[in-house]
Amino acid sequence: MTLPRILAFDVFGTVVDWHGSITHELESLNILPEDVRAADFVRTWRAGYKPAMARVMAGELGWMLIDDLHRIILDEVLDEYGVDLDEARRRHLNLAWHRLDPWSDSVPGLTRLRQGFTLCSLSNGNLGLLANMAKRAGLPWDLILSAEVFRAYKPHSATYLGVANVFDVEPSDVMLVAAHQDDLDAARDCGLRTAYIERPAEFGRDQQSKDVSGSPANDFHAESLEDLATQLDC
Amino acid sequence: MTLPRILAFDVFGTVVDWHGSITHELESLNILPEDVRAADFVRTWRAGYKPAMARVMAGELGWMLIDDLHRIILDEVLDEYGVDLDEARRRHLNLAWHRLDPWSDSVPGLTRLRQGFTLCSLSNGNLGLLANMAKRAGLPWDLILSAEVFRAYKPHSATYLGVANVFDVEPSDVMLVAAHQDDLDAARDCGLRTAYIERPAEFGRDQQSKDVSGSPANDFHAESLEDLATQLDC
Repeated sequence: MTLPRILAFDVFGTVVDWHGSITHELESLNILPEDVRAADFVRTWRAGYKPAMARVMAGELGWMLIDDLHRIILDEVLDEYGVDLDEARRRHLNLAWHRLDPWSDSVPGLTRLRQGFTLCSLSNGNLGLLANMAKRAGLPWDLILSAEVFRAYKPHSATYLGVANVFDVEPSDVMLVAAHQDDLDAARDCGLRTAYIERPAEFGRDQQSKDVSGSPANDFHAESLEDLATQLDC
Repeated sequence: MTLPRILAFDVFGTVVDWHGSITHELESLNILPEDVRAADFVRTWRAGYKPAMARVMAGELGWMLIDDLHRIILDEVLDEYGVDLDEARRRHLNLAWHRLDPWSDSVPGLTRLRQGFTLCSLSNGNLGLLANMAKRAGLPWDLILSAEVFRAYKPHSATYLGVANVFDVEPSDVMLVAAHQDDLDAARDCGLRTAYIERPAEFGRDQQSKDVSGSPANDFHAESLEDLATQLDC
């Protein structure tokens, strides 16, 4: 098959380790009651994300950046776990999503892939978050694209087709790289190619129950971004 | 004064040499009649740019990417100069704006500035154009921002204030770096800091009539991006 020219990457979970990074931040802050595990707190925070985006897309909430959605959910989770935290520390903690560490293969894998392809992010994270993250982590994007540009969150077709429009190419000239099959399925429905990346520890090293088998419909299936680079001859 | 955290750069003329780059492409293509100088053709093409953007902003044309505006103007200029060019070559020539070379100080200057600041573009060029240009020229942006993100061209305030919003900072935490005083004046009216870059050869080495004195109202005045880096202790 002809290879696509553009690789578009999901970010949270695929390129960066949100669970490990935020668990580590929370443990350093030492703000949780003794009976609350940081690893669980983070999963609860993250679990609020999809329902919150769904409320925005349903028109219940106006258009919101992920920073603001993260903050709404954080306030709820802090209440739920009975944690008292002042405004300055809430703001700081909320921005932990800007400080996520990449998986160990991400920077070397992206660096190799960038030799042969144009690399962009395609994340529901907002532009400022993605730019701060990329600068801190050294992610070598050619272009940072976000739901913020298209005013729609994935899996809305406006995001996947938006990448093709930005680069003035056919959808089949774009391949989505993601660790989430639902994201890849929605991209394929729009005519994009798909590459599945296994991230068995996405939801925590203490809970490796994630199904990483991927769909046979994907064009590529890789263990890591370095593995994908090898498969793509980079 | 406290230094801003974000440096936002005008691109055409400030970071890249549109006149020299496109003159060179045109001369290589060898498509102009003998009595037409490439240097003049390019200036005519560029001169159509501001009126075309003004028509979009006035609502006479729907929202358009700069690629499409460049093409409309190109077709007019080719007619005006009596040049016959097939569709494939028109498309290729129009994308010369994606292949602009940086001024010699741009990459070293940006590389130094990036150590101390977050760097973004703030250009009326579209995202695909800016991404292709940055990849080819090695421009080390932390984030590519464009009129396309804000659905407004500079000097509309939505563009300058948009940068501050994206990074969730005050307008005074952003400094626009540009070789055009009207761009800087509009940014200052929005509360941004301003740095003027002299680019005496912007309109061609054959026609160095550009006034590069800059306004005393600018926070910085530099001969080049390397000079700016030195002034900002990078």
